[in-house]
This record gives sequence, C-alpha cells and structure tokens, in this order.
Amino acid sequence: MAALPGPVLVVGTGLLGTSIGLALREHGVEVLLRDTSPAAAHLARDMGAGRLAGAEAGEPAPLAGPVLVVVATPPDVVVPTVLGALEEYPDAVVTDVASVKGRIEEAVLAGAGEAGSRYVGSHPMAGREKSGAAAADADLFHGRTWVVCARDGVARGGVTLVRALASAVGAVPVTMAAAEHDDAVAVVSHLPQVMASLTAARLDAVPGDALSLAGQGLRDTTRIAASDPMLWSQILTANAAAVLPHAEAAREQLDALVEALRRAAEEGVGAPGVMGTFAGVIERGRDGVTRIPGKHGGAARRYAEVTVLVPDRPGQLGRLFGEVGEAGVNIEDFRMEHSAGAKLGVATLLVLPARQIELTEHLESHGWRVMTS
Amino acid sequence: MAALPGPVLVVGTGLLGTSIGLALREHGVEVLLRDTSPAAAHLARDMGAGRLAGAEAGEPAPLAGPVLVVVATPPDVVVPTVLGALEEYPDAVVTDVASVKGRIEEAVLAGAGEAGSRYVGSHPMAGREKSGAAAADADLFHGRTWVVCARDGVARGGVTLVRALASAVGAVPVTMAAAEHDDAVAVVSHLPQVMASLTAARLDAVPGDALSLAGQGLRDTTRIAASDPMLWSQILTANAAAVLPHAEAAREQLDALVEALRRAAEEGVGAPGVMGTFAGVIERGRDGVTRIPGKHGGAARRYAEVTVLVPDRPGQLGRLFGEVGEAGVNIEDFRMEHSAGAKLGVATLLVLPARQIELTEHLESHGWRVMTS
Repeated sequence: MAALPGPVLVVGTGLLGTSIGLALREHGVEVLLRDTSPAAAHLARDMGAGRLAGAEAGEPAPLAGPVLVVVATPPDVVVPTVLGALEEYPDAVVTDVASVKGRIEEAVLAGAGEAGSRYVGSHPMAGREKSGAAAADADLFHGRTWVVCARDGVARGGVTLVRALASAVGAVPVTMAAAEHDDAVAVVSHLPQVMASLTAARLDAVPGDALSLAGQGLRDTTRIAASDPMLWSQILTANAAAVLPHAEAAREQLDALVEALRRAAEEGVGAPGVMGTFAGVIERGRDGVTRIPGKHGGAARRYAEVTVLVPDRPGQLGRLFGEVGEAGVNIEDFRMEHSAGAKLGVATLLVLPARQIELTEHLESHGWRVMTS
Repeated sequence: MAALPGPVLVVGTGLLGTSIGLALREHGVEVLLRDTSPAAAHLARDMGAGRLAGAEAGEPAPLAGPVLVVVATPPDVVVPTVLGALEEYPDAVVTDVASVKGRIEEAVLAGAGEAGSRYVGSHPMAGREKSGAAAADADLFHGRTWVVCARDGVARGGVTLVRALASAVGAVPVTMAAAEHDDAVAVVSHLPQVMASLTAARLDAVPGDALSLAGQGLRDTTRIAASDPMLWSQILTANAAAVLPHAEAAREQLDALVEALRRAAEEGVGAPGVMGTFAGVIERGRDGVTRIPGKHGGAARRYAEVTVLVPDRPGQLGRLFGEVGEAGVNIEDFRMEHSAGAKLGVATLLVLPARQIELTEHLESHGWRVMTS
C-alpha cells in the first residue's frame, strides 16, 4: 500500500465524504472538511472526520494546501465542484466518488482546459441504505472494490495518488477507463436493479396468502428492490446510454417469452416452439451466471455444499460454526433459509470440495442432521 | 401432527418419491415402491425407502392395499398415473407432487368420474439441483411448505390424509385451492425465475473485466438462474396461463423504462418525465418487496442490522457466532458478503431491534469491528 500524503480536502460531508475522513484520520492523514451546509461540516468534524477547511471557524490555517481533493457531493453538483477545486488548488489532484463516470469526465475535461490533467474520477463500490454524516463509518470501504478511472493525459502521479486513497481507507483499487466502468456497472448493477424492481412490483398484484409461499429464491432476487428511488433515478439517468442496449436486449427476450407463454396458454402444452423458447431463455441465463467470478475475484469455481438443519434457538448457529471451526474447515460462502411456520432453518455451507466429506462426518458425529449432496 | 397410517404406495422413485419413502420409513410407516424402471425401484429399495410393490420381486404381498398413493413421476405422465391408481386402488386417496396443480386437477376430475373425489393434489416446496433416487434425502422436506389443494367434493378425510403425509415428512402443510396455488407460484417463483434468467443472460455480453465489479446484489439476483432448463420449460409451459399476465405487466414496465433510457441518452439529463418514470419503477418495486413475509411466515417486519468485519480465516465465523450465542441473542437472518481481492468478509446479522445495542457492545468488547447502523 503506497502511503497517502496529506492534507486531503473532502468536499461534501455526507455518508461517503465523512466515512473517507474518518478512515483517513485513523491512519493519521490530515483531513480538511468543507460542505455548503455548515451544520453538516460541523457534524463531520465533531465525529472526528477532520478539521474544517478555511478560517471561518477561527481555526489556524493548514500548513500546506491539499495534495488531494475528494469531491463527495450529490451527483448533480459534482462537475462544477470539481472545476472549482481544480482552479482553487493548482497543485492538487482532484477526484470524485460518483457512481457514473463518463459524463463527469467528459464535462470536466471540456471545462477545465489544461488543469483537467489533474482530474482522476473514481467510484468506491460501497454504500448503504442510510445517508448523511451520522451514518458514516470508518470501515465502510473495507474490502470493497474502488474503481480508479485512468486515461491518457493524466498528470504524473495522479492515478497513483487516488489508488493510494482507496488503499488507505481499506478498499481494493481497480484501474479502468471511465467508459469501461460505466458499461460494467450497467450490466452488474444497474440492469439487475431494474429487473429486481420489476419482479418485486408484481408482488403488489397478489393476495397476501400467495406471499406465504415465498421462498429464498424470491427473497434473493428482490432484496435490492428495497433501494432508494431518488438515488436510482439519478444513476439510471446518468448512465442511460450504457444501460439502454442491455435493457433492450432483455426486453427482446421478454417479448419472445410472453409470446411463448401466450401460445402455451392458448394452444396447450404441445404448441410447437414453445418449449424451445423457454429452454433457450433459461439456458442463456445459466451460461451467464457461471461467468460471475468466485469469492475474492478468482475464476468462477464450484464449491461443495454441506446442508445442515439448524433448530431455531439462540446459539445454534454459534454451535454449528464453532464445530465447523474445530474441524479446521473454512467456509467459502453461506446461505440460510427459513420456511414459513417451521422452527428450523436450513443452513448451506459452501466449502472446498476436498473438505466436504470430512466436514460432513465431523458435523454428523456432533449430532447435526446433514443432508448429503 | 395427525398420525399417518400405512401402507403408502409411492409411484415414481426419483428424488421426491425416494425422499418421501425415506422420511416415512424413519417414522415407521410402511412404504411400497413402484417405478417403470426396475433399476430405479431397486435403488430406492436398497436405500431404505420401502419395499417393492407387487410380487415381481418374489416378496410376500402386503397385508393390506395402500391407504394413500403418492404419484411422484415426471410431470408429463402424472395424469394417466393418477387415473390408473384411482382405478387400481378403489379405497385409497391419491395425491401427486407436481409443481403446477390446476391443469392436473382438471384432467383428473374429467377422466376419473366419481373416483375423482379421492384425488387431492399437492406440492412440496422443496427440491434441489440434483435429481434421481441417489440424491434423495429423508430430510429434504424438513421445515418446507407443502401445499395441499382442497376443493369442494373431496372424499371425507382426503385432505387430512395428505396433510398428515406432509407433517410426517417434516413439512408444514398449507391448504389452498389449485388455482390459488398456481397464481401464487407464478408470482413468487416462476416470474422471478424468468427475470433472473434474463438478467444473467446479459452477463454473456460483457468482457470478463466487467464482471470483476460484481457484488452481492448481482449474486443474489441471479443465483436461481443456474436452474435446469428442461425442468423449467415444463413448469413454464404448464403454468403459462397464470404466468402470462405478470410477464405482460413486467414487459409493459420494461417498455416504459427502455423508452425513458432512450430519451435520457438522447436528450440528456433534463428530459421531462424521465426521472419520474425511473422513480416510479423503483418505487413500485420497493412497495412490493415490503410485502414479503418475514421469517416463519409472520408479518413483514424490520430487523436491526449488526454488520461485522470478519477476517477470511478458518474458524472466524465460528468465533463470531459463538460470541453471539454467548450474548444470548438469536440471529433472525444472516448475510455474508465477500469482495474481490479482499481477505475480509462483511457479515450482516439481523436481530430483533431491542437486542441490537447489546449485541454490538458485546461483540466490540470481544474485539470485533462492528459497523454501526
């Protein structure tokens, strides 16, 4: 991890800005805070995210100007704020943390002239349902990917400095072009959000009894549908060009599927071509899902499953994981499923295939009911 | 739990039939097995799922005919098999376990005459990726919902007997009409499957680097896209009439969304109506997702989250759950998130709101890094 020099000026002390300040202060980096709302800036300072920038609070001026300015304002004012910072601090590198990068980079380069070489956009893949400084956390970025947008013509050291920021707060920096980032999030984040919302919207159209049949599949596919409409409207608008072709392709498949459903409903089970359409849609999805990388960014790989019945009483999961730990087996992933009316959960532990039999035997010998697979 | 008398005849010794046999044998119920494939029947018998029906294996005839016949064949031969069983065993109740109920019930009642009063369809909400007797498990139905399809005109005791079957294998019986069941699974299972497949299909259209940005949201929304195309083609065909209106409604929303994306891409961020369309889609999804019942079929309720950073080493989850158990706090639900390149996971424990602060303090005092929320 390259050391990050200070001071770092954070402009915009909401959730992300304040969390960045807290994390940097933990590592002893000098942090200056600024917000158009004095109350927000004071809250961030009182939480320990840094000191106020400028003399307005009667504090002594910092010894040096910032080496890095982090613009963490709402998306709609990022561009003018970045342009202002490039002008105000002619020696500083300026980054922002908005979740769509291409439009911002384009506008900054068009507006900043030569100073634009000191702008490097970035996007920490972290967030939470809450917003504002009060929800900030020094650990928000721990282990998350932080995309740093490289391009030709960036001033020497600029990309390195923003990568050092990501590392300093515990994130994993990944360098890619802005357009590449926007295309990627269109597929791995924005289209899934839209499809989850469309799926969940149908739940409003059925009686409550129907929802008693909801299983883990429904919960998993719709969890992100609980997201904030205002935030997502801005994201979809900003990245519309990248999301559009994927939304159109999904609609084309959905059209074919609706037509096949209509024919199956009207002509019956044997209607020619119907099964082929259904199988094709499911098959293509199965091909796609195998491309998702496994844990820690490695190549996709299959883990072995060990499925255990867990009584719904305090401490049972603790006992289970304690005995998995005794066996010395690492859990690569974990799912927990509950059923309506049952005082029992089904826990699925994913482990390296070589450890499956050993773990199964260990758990069974400790009285667990294990389903073989 | 009402006691289930025997013998029970299981026709079709695949995954479900053999698992039913194994579970009933554990409770001492006499089970007879039959399959068009002698090898499949022999395998189920050798696994302990019951004895072979009929004298073909030189075994003594059972003392009495079956009180209950469970048809667990592939979906496309359920109807003739049910009709045959109703004729062959004039005193028995006959059920089946196929995942779409209306069409089967209609065909059985049309074909069976008066004997149709002894047919009661059912659907255990359980399954797994594998199939065949070799993948069978006595615990497959533990804690799962098992829908029993009641209707006017069922012979006295018929519904009770099938509910007793569900209870005997550890499932939770839920009685509803066949049409009600089919409408419910169209929304809570079949449409989510289709939408997950459409989402995952787009992953084939992007470079591998893009997938390195995949987070938990993508993994959750596409997990069920790994399902079997052949099985799902049959399910979608059989339930086409119930799935169709929901697929059409989703397409209508997707149409509006594609149009808004196109306008945002062409006319820019300020295009009138665009933000409203996006916000409306996300908002409707958020309304829908709040209707999903919480754990154990209770009303939807919010749990408090306690988010903990977990080092990726053997035994750490065990240590965490052990210390949660020490605190005497029950975990209502659990999520685990991993990031590319990070040797650290983020575990989210959902607990009753009244226990959140206590658990947070307990874990912090034991050295865990807890993110406040």
